[in-house]
Amino acid sequence: METAYFGRRYMLSASHRLHSEALSDDANRATFGKCNNPHGHGHNYVIEVLVGGPVDAETGMVMNMATLDGVVQTSILQRFDHTNLNFDPLFVNRVPTTENLCREVYSVLKFVLPTVKLEHVRVEETENNFFQFYGE
Amino acid sequence: METAYFGRRYMLSASHRLHSEALSDDANRATFGKCNNPHGHGHNYVIEVLVGGPVDAETGMVMNMATLDGVVQTSILQRFDHTNLNFDPLFVNRVPTTENLCREVYSVLKFVLPTVKLEHVRVEETENNFFQFYGE
Amino acid sequence: METAYFGRRYMLSASHRLHSEALSDDANRATFGKCNNPHGHGHNYVIEVLVGGPVDAETGMVMNMATLDGVVQTSILQRFDHTNLNFDPLFVNRVPTTENLCREVYSVLKFVLPTVKLEHVRVEETENNFFQFYGE
Amino acid sequence: METAYFGRRYMLSASHRLHSEALSDDANRATFGKCNNPHGHGHNYVIEVLVGGPVDAETGMVMNMATLDGVVQTSILQRFDHTNLNFDPLFVNRVPTTENLCREVYSVLKFVLPTVKLEHVRVEETENNFFQFYGE
Amino acid sequence: METAYFGRRYMLSASHRLHSEALSDDANRATFGKCNNPHGHGHNYVIEVLVGGPVDAETGMVMNMATLDGVVQTSILQRFDHTNLNFDPLFVNRVPTTENLCREVYSVLKFVLPTVKLEHVRVEETENNFFQFYGE
Amino acid sequence: METAYFGRRYMLSASHRLHSEALSDDANRATFGKCNNPHGHGHNYVIEVLVGGPVDAETGMVMNMATLDGVVQTSILQRFDHTNLNFDPLFVNRVPTTENLCREVYSVLKFVLPTVKLEHVRVEETENNFFQFYGE
Repeated sequence: METAYFGRRYMLSASHRLHSEALSDDANRATFGKCNNPHGHGHNYVIEVLVGGPVDAETGMVMNMATLDGVVQTSILQRFDHTNLNFDPLFVNRVPTTENLCREVYSVLKFVLPTVKLEHVRVEETENNFFQFYGE
Repeated sequence: METAYFGRRYMLSASHRLHSEALSDDANRATFGKCNNPHGHGHNYVIEVLVGGPVDAETGMVMNMATLDGVVQTSILQRFDHTNLNFDPLFVNRVPTTENLCREVYSVLKFVLPTVKLEHVRVEETENNFFQFYGE
Repeated sequence: METAYFGRRYMLSASHRLHSEALSDDANRATFGKCNNPHGHGHNYVIEVLVGGPVDAETGMVMNMATLDGVVQTSILQRFDHTNLNFDPLFVNRVPTTENLCREVYSVLKFVLPTVKLEHVRVEETENNFFQFYGE
Repeated sequence: METAYFGRRYMLSASHRLHSEALSDDANRATFGKCNNPHGHGHNYVIEVLVGGPVDAETGMVMNMATLDGVVQTSILQRFDHTNLNFDPLFVNRVPTTENLCREVYSVLKFVLPTVKLEHVRVEETENNFFQFYGE
Repeated sequence: METAYFGRRYMLSASHRLHSEALSDDANRATFGKCNNPHGHGHNYVIEVLVGGPVDAETGMVMNMATLDGVVQTSILQRFDHTNLNFDPLFVNRVPTTENLCREVYSVLKFVLPTVKLEHVRVEETENNFFQFYGE
Repeated sequence: METAYFGRRYMLSASHRLHSEALSDDANRATFGKCNNPHGHGHNYVIEVLVGGPVDAETGMVMNMATLDGVVQTSILQRFDHTNLNFDPLFVNRVPTTENLCREVYSVLKFVLPTVKLEHVRVEETENNFFQFYGE
């Protein structure tokens, strides 16, 4: 049975400050530049979720969009939208880069989406830079 | 010889109603929500075609864009643009989901594009959801 | 007191067929081209609403975004989203062009938004054509 | 002499928390919703500047783009990009809504752009909401 | 009778070199920077045309889109698309800035569109800068 | 160790004329159409670079964005931005198609980015056509 892919894009607004406890203040400024500003800054992140599976013969769908929307709303958007990422437990000992956010979104969705294959998670930080994770 | 990929995006406007003969009226409403409204609704679909092959040494091209445009115009846009998808023979016994539209566009183009490899067809239903098919 | 302007964009998917009872079949085809196809076709419309007023000193806002969202949801999106425009009472004796949709959205919002000034309604039919109405 | 208009778009990333000292905690939550979350959240703002004037016969320009870029860089982006807006002196006694940010950008640019007419400043908070100010 | 506005966007690819015969080589480099590079460079320009008029009661339109497309195709795109602007007669004694291109498009369309009011022409040079002309 | 992917988009404006020395004038016009116009034409190209690697535990990054920006600025943008591609040594005996530009950008970046894996280079010629190269 051939696989079709369904992608869906969500927006969330959050702030973060890039700062590593493992680095000196100078090294932090050198590494993260403006992103190390003490009071943080923010982004409109686009979260793109791509799932794959056979097309159901009765419904013509890979997965019901309302189901995916519900799962992402509950597990991702309620947790991260309109928050400061540095205060999320995930980022207590980890720099809240978009790479790390992308991996976390992938891990969470992998766990809560058991019946379709999660192909990738893509997080766009701005319209000119983005991150992708395939779990491999 | 290395492969290069050429992608091209086309727009088509069409309407559809999601309704499965295999389901009761209640199950249809539960499955398809607003998309089950009796009189249908519509979209501006973006059809993205990606082909791959070696770059021709004389022309510097994977494939002539005018050729691809002609093929897509004749085989896809003349058939689907400004139509109601439910009336296409393809959808007599099949729900006109974008998954199914995407697979059909892939099948048709696979057949009429013999000299390059058709890599994928992607159909964007709105700017926030899309479908992809690779023929595998 | 100076005026600030707040704009908000909404998306709705709907289908329509352009056909005028005042014209012969030939004149309809000549006037509306592919848009006269009997089974209709559809669009993802973007509805842009622009309101103007003084910035409230306490809240720093022209108008609460949640309020505007509620008004547009109730008066516009519930009525038109995922529908066939030709079946709306507005279009019994009127061609469902986007010009006419734009005027209707303006009239409805003018009536239900009494405390701010409705500056314009803009409806984008595709990314390459749009309509605007200022009520004058 | 006829007027031509030159528009330019800049991006800045910043965080803010919407909270008014003039309101109770409950009223703040009711008014600002998720935007009142204590640790703030962020956006990629687009700042659009529109200036107008005659087209110079020698250069064919309304205004040199490099000049405008320099002015906006120095007076707006260095101050607001990658910051938390709540810590800007402007927002000590004012809610950092995008309406207020838009007015401030207008005021600053009006002052530092003496030789062309500043027509408007538009600030897009997300791709679906924006604010405009014309100084009137 | 109230006025409705119809906007339409066209794309054209062209090259230009910004260089003024009225300036020395040094002044040209200082004024136009990279845009003064001797061999020219290019853009995908978006030409937006906005016309206004009453909505026709029979057709529901301000102006037939196919008519506008034909006029713009014949008078603007055939002349400028896939050309080097510096070789157009318009630019023999004038710098081919986008300000000047915008004014010319306005003048030409004003002349060939007698039955509707041409409201503005907007030319986007890149997604971050644009020019507008209202004929006043 | 799992791989994360970091993508970054850059814009460059350049002109080109598609013309092959290996073809007659008639064959050139038949092959390249409007793109064979003698004086050339231009585009705003988007260059998308995708790199992959493990996420560094200390910095939370695949690669420092400022480093990538510097490399692309020096090796790609300074060479191609605001130029006529036909005058680049690369295109002395090669047609300056976007396929060939894409391959060259890939080759150059492959050479100067030794510590991360270059996954792909994508070049968008217009918003409706693009090219990708993976080095295979």
